[in-house]
Amino acid sequence: MVRVGILGATGYTALELMKILLRHPNVEITTLTSRQEGNPHVSSIHPQLMARLDVSLEDLAPETVAARTDCVFSCLPHATSAAMVMKMLETEVRVVDFSADYRLRDAETYAEWYGHKHPDPERLGKTVYGLPELFGSDIPDAQLIANPGCYTSTSILALAPLLSGGFINSTDIIIDAKSGVSGAGRSPKLTTLYPECNESLSAYSVGRHRHTPEIEQILTVSSGQNVQVIFTPHLVPMDRGILCTIYATPIKDATEDRLLEAMRAFYADKPFIRIVDHLPATKDVTGTNFCDITVRLVKGRLIVFSCTDNLIKGASGVAVQNFNLMHGFDETTALL
Amino acid sequence: MVRVGILGATGYTALELMKILLRHPNVEITTLTSRQEGNPHVSSIHPQLMARLDVSLEDLAPETVAARTDCVFSCLPHATSAAMVMKMLETEVRVVDFSADYRLRDAETYAEWYGHKHPDPERLGKTVYGLPELFGSDIPDAQLIANPGCYTSTSILALAPLLSGGFINSTDIIIDAKSGVSGAGRSPKLTTLYPECNESLSAYSVGRHRHTPEIEQILTVSSGQNVQVIFTPHLVPMDRGILCTIYATPIKDATEDRLLEAMRAFYADKPFIRIVDHLPATKDVTGTNFCDITVRLVKGRLIVFSCTDNLIKGASGVAVQNFNLMHGFDETTALL
Amino acid sequence: MVRVGILGATGYTALELMKILLRHPNVEITTLTSRQEGNPHVSSIHPQLMARLDVSLEDLAPETVAARTDCVFSCLPHATSAAMVMKMLETEVRVVDFSADYRLRDAETYAEWYGHKHPDPERLGKTVYGLPELFGSDIPDAQLIANPGCYTSTSILALAPLLSGGFINSTDIIIDAKSGVSGAGRSPKLTTLYPECNESLSAYSVGRHRHTPEIEQILTVSSGQNVQVIFTPHLVPMDRGILCTIYATPIKDATEDRLLEAMRAFYADKPFIRIVDHLPATKDVTGTNFCDITVRLVKGRLIVFSCTDNLIKGASGVAVQNFNLMHGFDETTALL
Amino acid sequence: MVRVGILGATGYTALELMKILLRHPNVEITTLTSRQEGNPHVSSIHPQLMARLDVSLEDLAPETVAARTDCVFSCLPHATSAAMVMKMLETEVRVVDFSADYRLRDAETYAEWYGHKHPDPERLGKTVYGLPELFGSDIPDAQLIANPGCYTSTSILALAPLLSGGFINSTDIIIDAKSGVSGAGRSPKLTTLYPECNESLSAYSVGRHRHTPEIEQILTVSSGQNVQVIFTPHLVPMDRGILCTIYATPIKDATEDRLLEAMRAFYADKPFIRIVDHLPATKDVTGTNFCDITVRLVKGRLIVFSCTDNLIKGASGVAVQNFNLMHGFDETTALL
Repeated sequence: MVRVGILGATGYTALELMKILLRHPNVEITTLTSRQEGNPHVSSIHPQLMARLDVSLEDLAPETVAARTDCVFSCLPHATSAAMVMKMLETEVRVVDFSADYRLRDAETYAEWYGHKHPDPERLGKTVYGLPELFGSDIPDAQLIANPGCYTSTSILALAPLLSGGFINSTDIIIDAKSGVSGAGRSPKLTTLYPECNESLSAYSVGRHRHTPEIEQILTVSSGQNVQVIFTPHLVPMDRGILCTIYATPIKDATEDRLLEAMRAFYADKPFIRIVDHLPATKDVTGTNFCDITVRLVKGRLIVFSCTDNLIKGASGVAVQNFNLMHGFDETTALL
Repeated sequence: MVRVGILGATGYTALELMKILLRHPNVEITTLTSRQEGNPHVSSIHPQLMARLDVSLEDLAPETVAARTDCVFSCLPHATSAAMVMKMLETEVRVVDFSADYRLRDAETYAEWYGHKHPDPERLGKTVYGLPELFGSDIPDAQLIANPGCYTSTSILALAPLLSGGFINSTDIIIDAKSGVSGAGRSPKLTTLYPECNESLSAYSVGRHRHTPEIEQILTVSSGQNVQVIFTPHLVPMDRGILCTIYATPIKDATEDRLLEAMRAFYADKPFIRIVDHLPATKDVTGTNFCDITVRLVKGRLIVFSCTDNLIKGASGVAVQNFNLMHGFDETTALL
Repeated sequence: MVRVGILGATGYTALELMKILLRHPNVEITTLTSRQEGNPHVSSIHPQLMARLDVSLEDLAPETVAARTDCVFSCLPHATSAAMVMKMLETEVRVVDFSADYRLRDAETYAEWYGHKHPDPERLGKTVYGLPELFGSDIPDAQLIANPGCYTSTSILALAPLLSGGFINSTDIIIDAKSGVSGAGRSPKLTTLYPECNESLSAYSVGRHRHTPEIEQILTVSSGQNVQVIFTPHLVPMDRGILCTIYATPIKDATEDRLLEAMRAFYADKPFIRIVDHLPATKDVTGTNFCDITVRLVKGRLIVFSCTDNLIKGASGVAVQNFNLMHGFDETTALL
Repeated sequence: MVRVGILGATGYTALELMKILLRHPNVEITTLTSRQEGNPHVSSIHPQLMARLDVSLEDLAPETVAARTDCVFSCLPHATSAAMVMKMLETEVRVVDFSADYRLRDAETYAEWYGHKHPDPERLGKTVYGLPELFGSDIPDAQLIANPGCYTSTSILALAPLLSGGFINSTDIIIDAKSGVSGAGRSPKLTTLYPECNESLSAYSVGRHRHTPEIEQILTVSSGQNVQVIFTPHLVPMDRGILCTIYATPIKDATEDRLLEAMRAFYADKPFIRIVDHLPATKDVTGTNFCDITVRLVKGRLIVFSCTDNLIKGASGVAVQNFNLMHGFDETTALL
């Protein structure tokens, strides 16, 4: 049994992670942390877990967590996460970090987009980016995995085969992204108050969403081309789900059939990517680790549609997929 | 033109009130207050009002408000409201108070349910309760109106004709009430965060919701009987609307037709009460000042269904109805 | 491996059933039926199942289904279901029937509530009612299981311990029930069109919902008392979830703590019943086979709150729970 | 008083139209048509209108409608509408047609996109397109107005000032459009069944939505440039609202401030267009006739955001705006 700890266990990604791990035959959740007072039982924070998991949330030092666990998932916010993770990595513990702290490849870009100096700059550029469909071979041996962002995965998975196949102009890409509200986290704020965002729809963080450099850097690395995107996120009145509608300019002739075929070939042995003929709906992937993708040609422009459950394939599902690969379990364990 | 001020203008009831008053031919909104820093323009707080109302929110003393207005609507929370209203009432200004401060009839009950001493106990028991269908004749001359609670109105309007007609046992009444989320106000909190209450349903404040004594006191006064209710509120994933499903025990023989007829007679000249034959849906009254009511007999028990828009007939609509009666305007002005 | 067939595989309960069975280590789904033309692949009806289940929907005779399966789940509508099931039962095949056809105990009540003569009246009163928490010992040997209704289970599980313990008057029970829209099925109709039921709430079928006699008959049998209920269902704008708010009259003194303790004792070894201290929300059980229950005493009246996921514990989850018991698997297989 | 008739009065646009017209001081709704059997009272089709409008829905010949009315709004589906409208136009009656029948400028394009021959081709190219912000001067004298489509208005209003000012390339425009479900009408179908579209999001009709040629033709006419757009509609789980996120390529240097200023100048005297600095949400315009628009420059691309209430500014509100201009009333009557 792998002894698992979760840092920052009060939020939505932590909850989904626990629900998945409870189905995992090789996992024992031993440790949950939070800064909530009074060491609350997990079921008082997440009533869904009542009678399913008997662990309390504690405010623990990194070394204490390390002593109790073999693998830690950090659901802490950026900066806070790196501070904890750095210390964990001094031990044998392996870490899947949900925060953005180790996703970017250089400290300068990090500082530019996150507004503060990176606490652990040496690891940038050397940390494995945990998108198994692209970097699967690097994952088994990694001590630290930077778990991808939700918009990021959904965008990258749609674009990677088209860039790799040389089908599209890598610097003329528009990603019109739409997300359910759980993506905004569990801290009460006006913008995600029910009567504010229910029955409403709007764009936000236009031109300055932090997933932008992540998409560009990872696609640049994986495709070997300079990738530039315009990324426009929208908040949609639903709990979960991300749909990316991506507009790209073709640079070689290819029919829709040919494009779909190339995408299917690219993901031939990837159990969680479904290249579909129909226009996918987020509900098709809700509660699953699948990413559904299709493509259309309209008036000489290529439109890719991809969708995921932002809390699963966009966060906790892919984390377990990484965990499985790190520990030599079947990639789909607890995920199908 | 009546010069109108609104105290505590940042919330949902204030917004609905402004939208209604903008349609009122005899009203000029001159003054809005809040404790927000920097005197923000109303449209920066309520983008819906952009280009419709050119007033800023200010943090003003009661006498300043009084000098600029003829009538004030207070959307302040309880206790805060009475403290302001008391001072307003020393001037000529008339007040419609949305808070619970002047609704109950005695200071003891107030202290018991609201947890603090009433700042203005002399006015309790003497203030007109602003439910025009029951107390319409007292409203024109009142300087101060206690505007009713949303659950309260919806419950009272359903029960008043049945109690008045001697159809039901006044101490064996169960009100199973369901409300949309806007009823919980505009302050961010975990329980009304979108991913918490969307796709979910639960009861809350069982046995201790503050509208309970209000329903009992007002029905006791209006019917001349000792009224006791069990009141169970539920939070429903929708912006607006209240549905009360009320179970009562008949004490005299009457068919459904007879009961409907009695209700229609009771509300014969009331423009906003619709006694309907079908089972009403909250959507039938959304955005309106109507209260739709019907009744069924099931296995010897009487079930009354009533619904309102909690922000209109449950708050800002009835406030304008009161305002109209206070100022001699047609009761329906700006409300149809 | 148990070869499983599903009759009427186009609806929501069938979809949930397949999603659960795909996690079951001892099940092979071999056969799906529907009257859709052209033998569509299951993923064209349920895109969620793409790449997960490779079976087509066929219009098959009962004997053909029987030859291919060991156990059949019928998701057919009432009357249609009994007609198929009767023929299945002539073979060795075991059947879990989701319809209401075998739930009631006599043909007369069936005819009264369903409006037609029962096609297989001899089996009424002899068929095992598949609520494992009450009739678990009868399930292992049954060839046919009548799978309970969703409102029914949620109501019965809340009331059974209180009736059994002699705590409440068995003929003075009010069930105010609220359900998400998936309970109304997947056939397009005006009442469940999105813009009709979204942002709205109403009661329906007051005094004449078909789950009423089912609740009464099963509770009468299980408690040995004459049980009479008033049952008032409401449609709530959410996909899933049932909350029953049940009002009962105590007939012996008991504190809330004593009542909770009695309920916990009653369900001591039942893995899917959680007696909770807090007021449960439907979201706590969404996607699970749990039923969360609590109780409150208010002004001498007892109020029970119980909630389930109408498609899981209310339909497909309990069906698999029954299936597990029928086949000697652990009761929780594929359900946790 | 203008005597008004509404053809096809059972749907959502007709309901909104009636709600607006009930506030209009110069309108009497005399006639409602539908093919429903038994001449139902309007309140049995639209319970919201109970006690507000006392008219029945009748299946009437065009000449009968014409005899009873001065102006008719046709909410009939395309083809059916033109067939009725043609006959109306032989009388003095004036018509606002909500269908697409008279919006396109040539019969060939109509046949290509609507799949049948136009019944009244002579009027194409000569009918006034009822977007008052662009064609206001043609409206007062028109007997027939082609009321615009909802996506169409929202797109055109965003693009017109930018095309007119020569700011963008007219043939490189991407409109990523998102709409609430009421836009799909009131006929029950699987795609708009609550559990299908709730908690889900998807694109539809990619590359073949019928509003595409309408946007192109009207913008081409109004701007004098050849306009080509890629138009991608999405279905969003909310009742109402359209948000268009529009990507365009600048062809001359201009800051965001300059662009906003040009847009404000373009709509200087238009009461229902609000050029805003913030990113608009559909909720800001719900229930109103406003269109809120802003613009951003991101990495050399121009992004315009515009939103409307699809049933008001996108249908019934603009229809009344047209009606006001046709009859010499103030443009905003009944709309503010």
